[in-house]
Amino acid sequence: MEPRISLITLGVSDLGRARSFYEALGWKGQTVEETVFFQAGGLVLTLWDRGKLARDCGLEEHGPTGFGGIALAHNVRSAAEVDELIETARRAGATVTRPAATTFYGGYAGVFVDPDGHAWEIAHNPGFHLAADGSLTVPDFGSP
Amino acid sequence: MEPRISLITLGVSDLGRARSFYEALGWKGQTVEETVFFQAGGLVLTLWDRGKLARDCGLEEHGPTGFGGIALAHNVRSAAEVDELIETARRAGATVTRPAATTFYGGYAGVFVDPDGHAWEIAHNPGFHLAADGSLTVPDFGSP
Repeated sequence: MEPRISLITLGVSDLGRARSFYEALGWKGQTVEETVFFQAGGLVLTLWDRGKLARDCGLEEHGPTGFGGIALAHNVRSAAEVDELIETARRAGATVTRPAATTFYGGYAGVFVDPDGHAWEIAHNPGFHLAADGSLTVPDFGSP
Repeated sequence: MEPRISLITLGVSDLGRARSFYEALGWKGQTVEETVFFQAGGLVLTLWDRGKLARDCGLEEHGPTGFGGIALAHNVRSAAEVDELIETARRAGATVTRPAATTFYGGYAGVFVDPDGHAWEIAHNPGFHLAADGSLTVPDFGSP
């Protein structure tokens, strides 16, 4: 398996609301057969009905129950950009679950959840190289 | 907000087991302060304690309860690769929740969950261009 992720699908309860939220953040989607696709750099972010997604995965669905076990992160180039983006998300309907603050690793970050409860950390982490094309590189920690 | 995802963190209950699983699939991690980082193309896949991740997100944690609301996908270049990869994952400790089969969109795909219940679809989708560098492109559906 090549170490890469091609596509991330977020289960949502209201496709129109979810698409509007991400478009209010600046993303541009296409809706095809009750599915929204966003190009996200080299991968694809997809929105689809949560119950259908669960069934498609062969998994039991108990509805959103707080934390779903996964957090997405979007890294930016400055602390000021973290503040701006968290505020943009809040105005678009996100709930800020961790206000932006300095982090133990010397960065600055905050967390919001989208209207379906999916967690996004917005982070400025000077220790991880963020290239002009948006790709993020893990430093060589010299760790096993 | 630029349309991109920098990092995905999977909440896990046993960091060593989770790292071993992804390394058995062919990924190469580094462990730093009880966190495992994998370079995954232009983004980073991270493994971290599920309870700590929930608290870090400011969210309530009720433990894994079936479907978590998100599915990851890894696209490959042929149906045969789907079969091979699902079998590799099964041998590494994954549970196959949807055996590989032809899909309604003319592709071929199956789904497994990793040892912590995170869903991965392995898909061959001839309608989405998979570049040599692993990047996946949404076609122009001509849809609004």
